[in-house]
Amino acid sequence: MPHPPVPTANPVVVEITRGDLVESRHRGALAVVDRTGSTVIGLGNIVAPVYPRSAIKLMQALPLIESGAADRFGLTDAEIALSVSSHNGEPQHVAAVRSMLGKAGLSEADLECGPQLPARDEDRCALLARGEPPRRIHNNCSGKHAGMLAAAMHLGLERRGYVRHDHPLQQRIRATMAEMTGTDLTTDRCGIDGCSVPTWAAPLEGWARAFASVATGRDLGADRRAAIERIRRAVAAHPFMVAGSGRFCTRVMEATGAAAFVKTGAEGVFCAALPDRGFGVALKIDDGASRAAETLMAAVLCALGGLEGKARAAVETLARQPVTDRNGNPVGEMRASAELRAALA
Amino acid sequence: MPHPPVPTANPVVVEITRGDLVESRHRGALAVVDRTGSTVIGLGNIVAPVYPRSAIKLMQALPLIESGAADRFGLTDAEIALSVSSHNGEPQHVAAVRSMLGKAGLSEADLECGPQLPARDEDRCALLARGEPPRRIHNNCSGKHAGMLAAAMHLGLERRGYVRHDHPLQQRIRATMAEMTGTDLTTDRCGIDGCSVPTWAAPLEGWARAFASVATGRDLGADRRAAIERIRRAVAAHPFMVAGSGRFCTRVMEATGAAAFVKTGAEGVFCAALPDRGFGVALKIDDGASRAAETLMAAVLCALGGLEGKARAAVETLARQPVTDRNGNPVGEMRASAELRAALA
Repeated sequence: MPHPPVPTANPVVVEITRGDLVESRHRGALAVVDRTGSTVIGLGNIVAPVYPRSAIKLMQALPLIESGAADRFGLTDAEIALSVSSHNGEPQHVAAVRSMLGKAGLSEADLECGPQLPARDEDRCALLARGEPPRRIHNNCSGKHAGMLAAAMHLGLERRGYVRHDHPLQQRIRATMAEMTGTDLTTDRCGIDGCSVPTWAAPLEGWARAFASVATGRDLGADRRAAIERIRRAVAAHPFMVAGSGRFCTRVMEATGAAAFVKTGAEGVFCAALPDRGFGVALKIDDGASRAAETLMAAVLCALGGLEGKARAAVETLARQPVTDRNGNPVGEMRASAELRAALA
Repeated sequence: MPHPPVPTANPVVVEITRGDLVESRHRGALAVVDRTGSTVIGLGNIVAPVYPRSAIKLMQALPLIESGAADRFGLTDAEIALSVSSHNGEPQHVAAVRSMLGKAGLSEADLECGPQLPARDEDRCALLARGEPPRRIHNNCSGKHAGMLAAAMHLGLERRGYVRHDHPLQQRIRATMAEMTGTDLTTDRCGIDGCSVPTWAAPLEGWARAFASVATGRDLGADRRAAIERIRRAVAAHPFMVAGSGRFCTRVMEATGAAAFVKTGAEGVFCAALPDRGFGVALKIDDGASRAAETLMAAVLCALGGLEGKARAAVETLARQPVTDRNGNPVGEMRASAELRAALA
C-alpha cells in the first residue's frame, strides 16, 4: 500500500492509569499483513528498520528443520518448541536443552550465548543454594543455540563461531529472512543480540509480511511450508517450552492452541501469526517496554484473532490489567489507548 | 515564566543504540528551577500534573522532624535517612526499620504498606530458604511508613489508617507540599501509591520549585529549613540507607556527598536538590522507565551539579552506559539524546 507521511512521533498505544489520571504512556508502531500480502493495519512508523530480537526465533530455527538435522538427531516436539523459545531457565527447559545437545553429540561448552540467571526466584535460589554460578545453559536463548549448533553439525559447518554474522549458518538465516520479509538485510543494519547472534533490522511491515507467510504458507516452497507447520504444531502442543511459568507467550498459546503463534522479543518487539485468519503481526514499543508490548499484542489478538469463549476471555485478561498496590487493592489499570482501540475497531 | 505552547509529544530525552541504529527511545519532561524561583529549563510539558511517587519522600518525612518526633524517639541519622528511602530490603535496612518502630513503641504489625520481597537475590533467597514469606518490613517504603507512624504517635493521632488520604498526617503532608509547590493538591488528582499512601499530582515545574526550596531554603520558615537541612545531612552521611547496594541514588550520593540530594520514584519520576548551585530538579519519563529516568538525572547532574574530579567521573559513568551482550561485549549504549544535550548545553 502507499505509505502516508511518517509522523514525527508514533501514537500512544498503551496507557497506565492511577486514580483519575493517565500516569504513563507507551508509544509504538503496529503492522498487520493479511493473507493476500496486503498491509491492513499500519499504525505509526512501520517503514523504519527494527531489530526483531527474539521475536523471529521461528525463522532462525528453520535451518534446523529444513536441513533434516531435527530428524537426524531425533528431536522431540518439545525440543523443537524449545529451539524457538525465550525460556525461563526452569528445570524442564534446562533438561531439554541438555537432551538436545546430547543428541547432537554436543555439550554445554559448545554454547556461545553467555551465562544468565534463571528468571524465577525459586530457580535462581536453587542455583545460589548449591553455590553454582549461572551458566550458558540457563540463558533464555539456550534452546535456540542448541538448535543452531545441531543444524551446523548436520550441515558439516564449523561449530566454533556459529554466532558470528558471517558464519554460513547465520548467512543462511539472513537469506531466509530477507526472502520472507522482502527486505535487503545488510550489515549496516545488523546489531548483536543479547545472546551474541546477529539481529538484522527490517521494517516492521516486512516482519508482519513474513509472519503472514508463517500463518498461510503463501509464497513459500513446500519444504519451508512443512517446516513452519511442524514448528507451529510443536509450539501449540508445548507452549510451556517456548517461555515458561506465568509468561505471556505460554499463557496465550495455552489458551489459543494452534489459533495463534506469538513470540516476544527484547526491547518491546512482538510478532504473531494467526493461521486461521491469515494475519501476520509485528509491533514495537518505542521505549522497549515488555508490559506495553504484551498489552498491545493481547489487544491485537482480541481484535483480529477470531477467538471465542475461554480463549478470548484469557487473552482479554491480558489486554486490560489492573494496577494494584502491595496490599492488592486496585489503584489503576494498564490498557489500550483510545487511538489504538480506534485503529483496531 | 510564560509557557510556550505545549507540544503534542514530549521530546526524546534518552536513547538506546544497538549497532549503528537507535533501537529504543524514551520521551520525557524536565523542569529545573533556580535559587530565585525561576524556571531555567523547561523541556517538554512541565505543566501537566505528575504523581511524584517516592521522589518526594523528603517532604513526606517533614512532620517526623518538624513535630519533634525524631528527637523524642531518639532517631539516629541513619534512621532519618531511612525515613526518606526506597530501600532494597537488605538486612541493614530491615534492622533499622525494626529499631525505628521499637523506639516509637510500635511493631511490624502497625505498618500498612503491604508486603514486598527484598530487591536483591541474596536477600530474597535467604527468606525463601527460611521458608518465610515477604513481610511489610521488607517493603521498599517501610522506612517511610515507620517515620509516618512515629510522627502520628508523637502528634497523638490515630495510628490505624495513617495511610488514608483524609488522615490528619496525610493532610498535613499535603498542605506542606501544596505550599512548597505553589499548587492546589486536590483529591481528583490524588492517586494511591504502591505502598497505599496518597500520591498528589502537581506540575513538574511545581515539584522542581519545591526542590529548589529544599536546596536553598528560600521562602521557608526557620523550622522547615532546619528540618530539611537535617534530612539532607543525614542522607549525605548515610547514602546506603536511602536505597542500597548498587542503586543509583546511593551511588550518586556516595560520589557527590552533600552536593546533591537525589531521590527516585516509581514510573520514571526523579527529583533532586543541588544546594551548592541552588537548583531544584524534577523529571518524568513518559513511559515510566527507571533506566531512562536515571540516565536523564545523571545527565542533568553532569550539566548543572558543579561536580568535579571523582564525583563528576562517577556521575558521568551513569549518564552514558554501554549495553552489553551476555558475554560482556559492548553492543550499543544508553545515552542522552541530541535534543537533551542541546537543552542542557
